[in-house]
Amino acid sequence: MDISVVERLVQNSETKILQIILDGLGDIHSATGQTPLESANTPNLDKLAKESSLGLVDPIFPGITPGSGPGHLALFGYDPLINDIGRGVLEALGIGLTMKKEAVYARGNFCTLDENKIVLDRRAGRIPTEKNEKICEKINIILKDYKELDAKVYTVKEHRFVLEILDDKLDFRLNDADPQKVDLPYKYIEEKLPEAKQSADKINKLIDYILKGINGDRVNGILLRGFARDPGLATFEERFKLTPIAIAQYPMYKGLASLVGMTLAHVGPNMIDLAKALEENWNKGYDYFFFHVKKTDSYGEDGNFEAKKHVIEEFDKIIPAITKLNPDVILITGDHSTPCPMKAHSWHPVPIMIYSKNVRADNLVFSEKNCRLGSISRINAIYEIPLLLAHSGKLDKYGA
Amino acid sequence: MDISVVERLVQNSETKILQIILDGLGDIHSATGQTPLESANTPNLDKLAKESSLGLVDPIFPGITPGSGPGHLALFGYDPLINDIGRGVLEALGIGLTMKKEAVYARGNFCTLDENKIVLDRRAGRIPTEKNEKICEKINIILKDYKELDAKVYTVKEHRFVLEILDDKLDFRLNDADPQKVDLPYKYIEEKLPEAKQSADKINKLIDYILKGINGDRVNGILLRGFARDPGLATFEERFKLTPIAIAQYPMYKGLASLVGMTLAHVGPNMIDLAKALEENWNKGYDYFFFHVKKTDSYGEDGNFEAKKHVIEEFDKIIPAITKLNPDVILITGDHSTPCPMKAHSWHPVPIMIYSKNVRADNLVFSEKNCRLGSISRINAIYEIPLLLAHSGKLDKYGA
Repeated sequence: MDISVVERLVQNSETKILQIILDGLGDIHSATGQTPLESANTPNLDKLAKESSLGLVDPIFPGITPGSGPGHLALFGYDPLINDIGRGVLEALGIGLTMKKEAVYARGNFCTLDENKIVLDRRAGRIPTEKNEKICEKINIILKDYKELDAKVYTVKEHRFVLEILDDKLDFRLNDADPQKVDLPYKYIEEKLPEAKQSADKINKLIDYILKGINGDRVNGILLRGFARDPGLATFEERFKLTPIAIAQYPMYKGLASLVGMTLAHVGPNMIDLAKALEENWNKGYDYFFFHVKKTDSYGEDGNFEAKKHVIEEFDKIIPAITKLNPDVILITGDHSTPCPMKAHSWHPVPIMIYSKNVRADNLVFSEKNCRLGSISRINAIYEIPLLLAHSGKLDKYGA
Repeated sequence: MDISVVERLVQNSETKILQIILDGLGDIHSATGQTPLESANTPNLDKLAKESSLGLVDPIFPGITPGSGPGHLALFGYDPLINDIGRGVLEALGIGLTMKKEAVYARGNFCTLDENKIVLDRRAGRIPTEKNEKICEKINIILKDYKELDAKVYTVKEHRFVLEILDDKLDFRLNDADPQKVDLPYKYIEEKLPEAKQSADKINKLIDYILKGINGDRVNGILLRGFARDPGLATFEERFKLTPIAIAQYPMYKGLASLVGMTLAHVGPNMIDLAKALEENWNKGYDYFFFHVKKTDSYGEDGNFEAKKHVIEEFDKIIPAITKLNPDVILITGDHSTPCPMKAHSWHPVPIMIYSKNVRADNLVFSEKNCRLGSISRINAIYEIPLLLAHSGKLDKYGA
């Protein structure tokens, strides 16, 4: 879905856009016949919703379950089927690394190999994070003496780490160094295209160097997957003439926001801190605010209906602090559904509501059931930004 | 609509998919204010629908009336605007011919020409099928002696037949041998592209040979249209890792199913035979079942409201036999609408319901009116397969 005409139609306007993502918001009906959103007590949200248009959103297209990366790209107005963010980059964003333009990133697992380099355990017994940190420290020391590549590893957690290689010539079109299953021989990297052969060779040498350096009994190998670079996306400013700021608490979402050129606000750890950060930054020249609530997704993944419902109720309590800022348009949705009964992301379309003074109001409260009936009907997430720009008076007419 | 990402995300899962097509299901409101689906007494369907997501489906896009070929291609997940099945092939499928990879097929009409080869009757007075059979027999006898092309004709009905030419070099980019109107001169085949000239010449020679051979007073000419080959579609197995079987009674639908690589079940002629065939094949290693009910369309074409309604009620009676097999997902829809007041296929969106344990249930019975209000909203038929795969746990997440 090509929305590039939007870029030609964007015009200046003294208005402010607020896009609120309750991560994994959508749900399916539990035994009680209700979803967390339907059963939550949300007087402020209800009031706002009645003056809003409601609908349902497909992050990718019907049936596709998105990860956080594609889910957010879509609602930022970037087609996630075209703009692929590699796994290595996502893992790096997830631990808060600042993307370096010249870097290649890969996801790493510490693993266990036998004397013949047969993979015995792809996760090295899920070592504790502290052990991981010590091993990374050790590897980084020996990497300082390695002349052929400028590489560094970063702890994620348990057996997981990120490998960063600073080399703007390195070709990242590489297959994974991972046999995917245990009891198979260790697999070195292979190039996906002949042009990447030299890069594959270089990284395989680096792997051997690291393997020699680890030399632990249980942790004696590394698997590397998802080689990728910063996708080099055009920024929000370039595409939509917006000056964006991200009000987000978790590294992954801050990272995704930074990929499209958003400034990152300083935000404390609680729900109220999100509202505070929004208020603090409201009059600092930004006209687009990405506002991200993580825990709806976390509790969905845990299958914890009550906790997910509680997060929605906590969010409801900060709505007055948000509306008193008078955003010209407020959009509330999720990046995907995370139904409690499934304990995972899903393909179910996500409730959306758009509030502004010029919206076609549906006079319905915000719920999966009502969103079926709303004026927005069912749209693709890629249209959220055009709708936000439109409702805030930032889109000129197309044609005469 | 490119759904190819689905092919990358398909994963194995011990689940079974049932896609039920009530051909031409959708209707518009008659004088009674109801459609056949709305007025039918369907207690079993109602019960299932209440635990399902409802919606509306566009086979192609709003406003486009599909034939059976494009209608089915779409709901099999093949974009019907890209994957064109030629008319010759459809006509051959419709009489149950097994596609030969080296063959070119054309639809034929027996017609009446005057002594100057002016077309007097494009259908030769709609001769009875028995007469058609005798003429075809006669033509096939003389074609055995024809050395330049290996050709054969097959009776369809009345004045219609299929021409099959076995020649894998023949270029089928040919215009029709048909002036389209009476009182115009007979029109030989012309090539659409210069490369096809030799093929056009060959078939025109064949036409002259057949014309000489027919030599009947009323039936003395043939019109040929829609030259085409087996489109060579990637199979269901190749695209979706599914092992599919078609539970269908009519040649056209069995033929369409076989084009995408489905096994064809042996099915008796009645509604109950469909349920029996489903049960017989349920545990034979298939994980996708295409289930086709024809008569909803036939009675729609006849404008017979009561009979169409009765077919839906007959279908309702076999639902318990279907649900007792415990399909992981059941989708019920049509390939297009065939409104009784119009006595023809139409562009109206088709009711759809999807039942599975992880569906967002709408608690509504299945009808055109309620489908407007369902969670599925309005989707394109191309998304039926992604949704079936998703609900049956056969689709991995897209991105991290």
